[in-house]
Amino acid sequence: MENVLDTIEEITLMGPGPSCVHPSVLTALSKSTLGHLDPSFISIMDEIKTLMRGLLHTGNQLTMPVSGTGSAGMETAFVNLVEKADKVLVLINGVFGMRMQDVAGRLGADVDTLAFEWGTPVVVDDVKTALAKKDYDLVAVVHAETSTGVENPVAEIGALLKDKKAIFLVDAVTSFGGMEIRMDDWGIDALYSGTQKCLSCPPGLAPLSFSDKAVEKLKNRTDKVPNWYLDLTMLMNYWDGATRAYHHTAPINMLYGLYQALYLIHEEGETAVYQRHRDNHTLLVKGLAELGIDMLVDSACRLPMLNSVNIPEGADDAAVRSTLLKEYKIEMGAGLGPLAGKIWRIGLMGHTARPENVEKLLAALKALL
Amino acid sequence: MENVLDTIEEITLMGPGPSCVHPSVLTALSKSTLGHLDPSFISIMDEIKTLMRGLLHTGNQLTMPVSGTGSAGMETAFVNLVEKADKVLVLINGVFGMRMQDVAGRLGADVDTLAFEWGTPVVVDDVKTALAKKDYDLVAVVHAETSTGVENPVAEIGALLKDKKAIFLVDAVTSFGGMEIRMDDWGIDALYSGTQKCLSCPPGLAPLSFSDKAVEKLKNRTDKVPNWYLDLTMLMNYWDGATRAYHHTAPINMLYGLYQALYLIHEEGETAVYQRHRDNHTLLVKGLAELGIDMLVDSACRLPMLNSVNIPEGADDAAVRSTLLKEYKIEMGAGLGPLAGKIWRIGLMGHTARPENVEKLLAALKALL
Repeated sequence: MENVLDTIEEITLMGPGPSCVHPSVLTALSKSTLGHLDPSFISIMDEIKTLMRGLLHTGNQLTMPVSGTGSAGMETAFVNLVEKADKVLVLINGVFGMRMQDVAGRLGADVDTLAFEWGTPVVVDDVKTALAKKDYDLVAVVHAETSTGVENPVAEIGALLKDKKAIFLVDAVTSFGGMEIRMDDWGIDALYSGTQKCLSCPPGLAPLSFSDKAVEKLKNRTDKVPNWYLDLTMLMNYWDGATRAYHHTAPINMLYGLYQALYLIHEEGETAVYQRHRDNHTLLVKGLAELGIDMLVDSACRLPMLNSVNIPEGADDAAVRSTLLKEYKIEMGAGLGPLAGKIWRIGLMGHTARPENVEKLLAALKALL
Repeated sequence: MENVLDTIEEITLMGPGPSCVHPSVLTALSKSTLGHLDPSFISIMDEIKTLMRGLLHTGNQLTMPVSGTGSAGMETAFVNLVEKADKVLVLINGVFGMRMQDVAGRLGADVDTLAFEWGTPVVVDDVKTALAKKDYDLVAVVHAETSTGVENPVAEIGALLKDKKAIFLVDAVTSFGGMEIRMDDWGIDALYSGTQKCLSCPPGLAPLSFSDKAVEKLKNRTDKVPNWYLDLTMLMNYWDGATRAYHHTAPINMLYGLYQALYLIHEEGETAVYQRHRDNHTLLVKGLAELGIDMLVDSACRLPMLNSVNIPEGADDAAVRSTLLKEYKIEMGAGLGPLAGKIWRIGLMGHTARPENVEKLLAALKALL
C-alpha cells in the first residue's frame, strides 16, 4: 500500500496557525516514549510548569498543559470555573469571543455579551459600564483575536476587575509566546493557550494557568465538574500532587515538543522573541504597503503575529491562496465570518516570524497580483 | 540552561501502556507540519478513517480519531450519547468500568451498575436478567479491562441487545489493534480506543466510531451537547463534511503517527498481528510459570496483551518495579485499586509484543527474584 505520509511537502505556514515548527521541536517529538509515571518524565513535566510560569509572569501553582488543542483549553477553563446559572460576561469582537459565548452557554451559564465591531478592540469604558450594572461571576475576553488581528486591552480590563468577585478569564491562544503576558500584574485569574501559534510547536496541547482565586472558585463548586477528562481537581493531583495520582495517560511525545518549544524561547530570551515578532511585522506591513495592500486593523491595536490585510480589488481570494499554496508552498489564512472574502490573515508566529519568510511571501504576492 | 530531553533513555515499555513505539511512527511524528485545511492533510485524514474502518470491520461513516487521549474518547462517547436522566447500565469489573460510571453520572444520567469480581469477566446471564428488568438507553462495557487483564464477552452482550433500543457502547482502549473487533457483526454502536496501547503510537489520540443508530441518537438530542470541544455534530463536519468546516485545529503530527501505526498493522496483516500477540503471551506465561509466577486471570478470559500476574510471596512490589526500571530499563505496571500490591501488569501491546522483549523481562525477573 502506498504510504500517504510520503506526499507531505514542507510548507511555509503563514496562516493563523499552525505556524512553522522549529526543527528541534520536531526532533523532540520523535524521542523515545517514556511511561507517564516514569521519574524522568515527571522531571520533564516539572520543567514545563516552571518555564510556563516564567513566560506568563505568574506564581500560580496550577499551571500545566491540558491534553488537547487550544480549544480544549477553552473548554477546561469554562467547565471548571462556570456553574449552572453563573453570571458570565463575554466580550466579543471576533470568532473566538463568539466561541466563548457558545461554550459558556452549553454549561448552563447566564451569559451576557458586549459586542464590538470586528477589526476594532474591546472598549474599556463600555466594560466599566456593564460591570457597574451587574455583579458577574466571570468575565472573559480574547487577548489576541486570531480572526481579526486585534489586540484587546487585557491589562486595563483586569484593572477594572481588581476588587470584584468576578474571575477574569483570558484566551491567550495566539498571544502566548509572541507578546508580553503578565498574568499576576494584570489580574488574570485563568488563562489558556495553544501550542501551534507562537510556541512553534504542532497543535495538540493547551497551556493553562489558574490563580489561587480561580482554584478557590473551583474548590467551592457545589457539583462535580461535569467533564471527567478535563476535571482539574483530579488533573492537579497528577501534575502537582505528592502522589502523582494517575488520571489519564499524558500525551508524552507532544509534551517533549512543548518542553523544547519553551526551552527555545527561554534560550533566545523573552524580550528578543517579542522584538523579533514586532520587527517582522513592521517589515511585512512596509512591504505590503509597497504592493498597495493595506491593513484591516488600526496600528494602535494591531497584533504583530496575526496580520489581517484587505484583499486588493480585483484579486480572487481563493485562487490566490490556492496558487500560493500549490506553487509557492506558502499557506496564508482566509477571512472568517463577516470578514470571509474580505481579508487574508498572514501569520508571523514563532518560528514563522523570520525575515526570509516575510520576503518570500512578499515576492510571491508581487508575482501573483 | 540544561535541556532535560537529553536525559531521556530508551525504556522497554511493558506496562499497561504506553507501549513501545515503532521507530517509523516516531519518524512520522517529526514530519513537517501541514495546515489543518491543507488538501494533502485532508487526504491523510481520509486514509486514517479508511484504515480504522477496516480494522474495526465496520461501515460506520462516523469513524475518526478524537483530539485527546483514550479517556477523551470515553468522554466523547458519553457526552454525545447520554442526555440527562437517560437510563444507563454500566458493567463493571475493573477501574475502567468504574470510570465509565463516574463519567455517565457527571452528565446527569440515571446510572445502574452490575459489578463482577475483579479478575473475572462480566457474566452474560446476569446482564440478560438486568436487561429484562429495565429498558435502558445505553449499556456500556470495557472489552479488555486494562486494570485486570480480563476479556469481557462483548459479542455475547451485543447479541442480547440486538432488538433493544439501547445503544451498545464499548471501551476498546486496550483491545484495538491487538485482538479482533467486529463492530458491525457484534452489534457495537459506539466504540473508542487510544493510540498508546496496541497501535504502538504515543498517547494523544482516541480512535472512535459511531453506528448509524448512535448517530441517530445524537441527532435526536433535545439539548446541545454540553461540551463544545467534543461535540461530534460539529466534528463530523470537519472530518467528513463536504465543506470540511473548521472546528478546532487538529493535532496534525499526532495524526501522522496514527496513520503510520495503522499502516504498519495493514502491512503486517491483521491476522498476523493478533497471532503475534497470542504467541508472545504464550511465551510469557510459560516463562513465568518456570519462575513460579502464576496468572491472576483464568486462561478462558485472559487477554494476550495485558498480563496480570500474582506478585510472588516475599517480593517487594515497588522495589522490584523500581529496580527493573532503573537497572534493566524495563517498565512494568503496578496493580490498581483492590489489586494494588497484589499483582503486576505486564503489557505485550503492539510493538512491545516481540520475543526479545519477553525474554529480556524473564531474564531480569529471574535475576531479581
